[in-house]
Amino acid sequence: MLEDKNPQRTSLEKLGEFGLIDHLTKNFEIKHNSTLKGIGDDAAVFDHKQQTVLTTDFLIEGVHFDLSYMPLKHLGYKAVMVNLSDVYAMNAKATQITVSLAVSNRFPLEALEELYAGIALASKVYNVDLIGGDTTTSTSGMLISITAIGEAKEEEITYRSGAKPNDLLVVSGDLGAAYMGLQVLEREKEVFKVNPNNQPDLSPYSYIVERQLKPEARKDIAELLKQLDVLPTAMIDISDGLSSEILHLCKNSKVGCNLFEEKIPLDPTVITTCEEFNIDSTMVALSGGEDYELLFTIAQNDFDKIKGNPNLTVIGHMTEASEGAHLVTRANTKIELTAQGWNSFKSND
Amino acid sequence: MLEDKNPQRTSLEKLGEFGLIDHLTKNFEIKHNSTLKGIGDDAAVFDHKQQTVLTTDFLIEGVHFDLSYMPLKHLGYKAVMVNLSDVYAMNAKATQITVSLAVSNRFPLEALEELYAGIALASKVYNVDLIGGDTTTSTSGMLISITAIGEAKEEEITYRSGAKPNDLLVVSGDLGAAYMGLQVLEREKEVFKVNPNNQPDLSPYSYIVERQLKPEARKDIAELLKQLDVLPTAMIDISDGLSSEILHLCKNSKVGCNLFEEKIPLDPTVITTCEEFNIDSTMVALSGGEDYELLFTIAQNDFDKIKGNPNLTVIGHMTEASEGAHLVTRANTKIELTAQGWNSFKSND
Repeated sequence: MLEDKNPQRTSLEKLGEFGLIDHLTKNFEIKHNSTLKGIGDDAAVFDHKQQTVLTTDFLIEGVHFDLSYMPLKHLGYKAVMVNLSDVYAMNAKATQITVSLAVSNRFPLEALEELYAGIALASKVYNVDLIGGDTTTSTSGMLISITAIGEAKEEEITYRSGAKPNDLLVVSGDLGAAYMGLQVLEREKEVFKVNPNNQPDLSPYSYIVERQLKPEARKDIAELLKQLDVLPTAMIDISDGLSSEILHLCKNSKVGCNLFEEKIPLDPTVITTCEEFNIDSTMVALSGGEDYELLFTIAQNDFDKIKGNPNLTVIGHMTEASEGAHLVTRANTKIELTAQGWNSFKSND
Repeated sequence: MLEDKNPQRTSLEKLGEFGLIDHLTKNFEIKHNSTLKGIGDDAAVFDHKQQTVLTTDFLIEGVHFDLSYMPLKHLGYKAVMVNLSDVYAMNAKATQITVSLAVSNRFPLEALEELYAGIALASKVYNVDLIGGDTTTSTSGMLISITAIGEAKEEEITYRSGAKPNDLLVVSGDLGAAYMGLQVLEREKEVFKVNPNNQPDLSPYSYIVERQLKPEARKDIAELLKQLDVLPTAMIDISDGLSSEILHLCKNSKVGCNLFEEKIPLDPTVITTCEEFNIDSTMVALSGGEDYELLFTIAQNDFDKIKGNPNLTVIGHMTEASEGAHLVTRANTKIELTAQGWNSFKSND
């Protein structure tokens, strides 16, 4: 359905490894004073006056993305977002990225240009410098490995381990949309297989499809919290699903949690699409993943500072570890939270 | 020939993603004060008082390594070396690494334990902290993406761009051994295909096979140069072959070069094996690659400081850019240097 109809196909062999890197990265500008040397030496060089945070993620064709409905420009953008999200989850400012790419010869140069257009857009919008990477052939498919680097003052960095009993559990944005967007895209892919001439009308699903194909990392939340003078006691980004992330916070902070089902923020499109697919929307929020929202805990004293902010929702509170981690349902029953997060080694994925 | 005969095969599915990371990394110790948070949060945190250098490389099964003769422990070790070599080429001290791994379900847990044993050994010997990474499934084969991080004082960092005309061109160690080791291993692989019961005697080739399977990055050279009070004007590591690296130095420093064939350091085993394979040993040194030696330039004034050091060989000198880059042969003819370095996008690789 989103097939590349571009007739121009330049073979990667023509450019060679160094020519390819030069070609793909020539329009990237260095924006940070802390970046002293980007691409073009044995290593990049940077100089952070504060502490450095660093995170890395693989994105693999056939495991993490499907090029039959993921346009390459969106993929490039999303690959950067996935990594920046982890930097923001440390309450840090993202400053640099490296992008390593392995592709089979089935991809022409024009495909990689599209991918890098997405990476360039993400770098511009999120104000990060591309400072390095590696480009090579793969024996099959496309693999992207990105490392994102940020900086923060020592006292501002938020680990997963700082939550205390009675802290409030807060989430940015809304949950479950990326997962439901994926369900819609998977359904349309099946329809396309049967009838390639069918032009799907995705407009009713535009919000959730965009959340899947072009997520935005929450750069704004760290800035907002600074304005509100709130320092989270613990923070994590939601990549695997709310449930799994809550359990990470509980384990690392040695606390328990009560999560209130009625408080979980859902977009109306998620609710209607869940009804259409006959899926429970709470399950989707708990286990869907790929939301790239931030989940954090704050001291109760800070509640007044965030109250009423449309970007933030209090969804529960932390407890003593001995109380465990539970979902309190709308019917006021307590269900133990389990990690239903994405397990990439499960064969039935 | 180096088949894994280990009968124990634990499926990766059993552990899940987080269990697997915990299991593989539990014995890694944090050794540097600059490492504030390793594995276990959204991002690692470190604090360098000096400038930070950072480099990343992909190693892909079927492109960069062949598991039919590369034992997994050696592969883990080599994957770290390839990256540390780039840090040392900046004249920096390596401090941290991240290791990302994508593997198909064909690999049992025991195989990954072997790989991580090699990574652990490299981390110990080279004194670097494992601070992060990602572990996921691949649709085929094994892919390793490593990022190596180091630190150095601003005035000590050596870029490729600082060489001046009349600077001396110096190389550590000897060249061509890794490439000839690969030729021997490839030959034995063909023999093994014909006769699986054949036990090859690799002892005459032990030096060159070890240079291929278990290279060492030249951590000692930066230390040695500091002791000798020599600051290279430019430096690069030899991964693609001497010729290609010289051309990088020339291009980045805007100089030319005369390289003297008779000065190129070759181990006797390389010479005899080249004779056996009927390959020109100079070509092997120029284009073989994977030596992971350091190539650098020094001011003529510094010559007395390095003279006679068994680790270092002066192989030429830099010239004005207009003179070009040449090999001066034993017969005293000048041949233009061309990059015969490894091009991963050439289909005949």
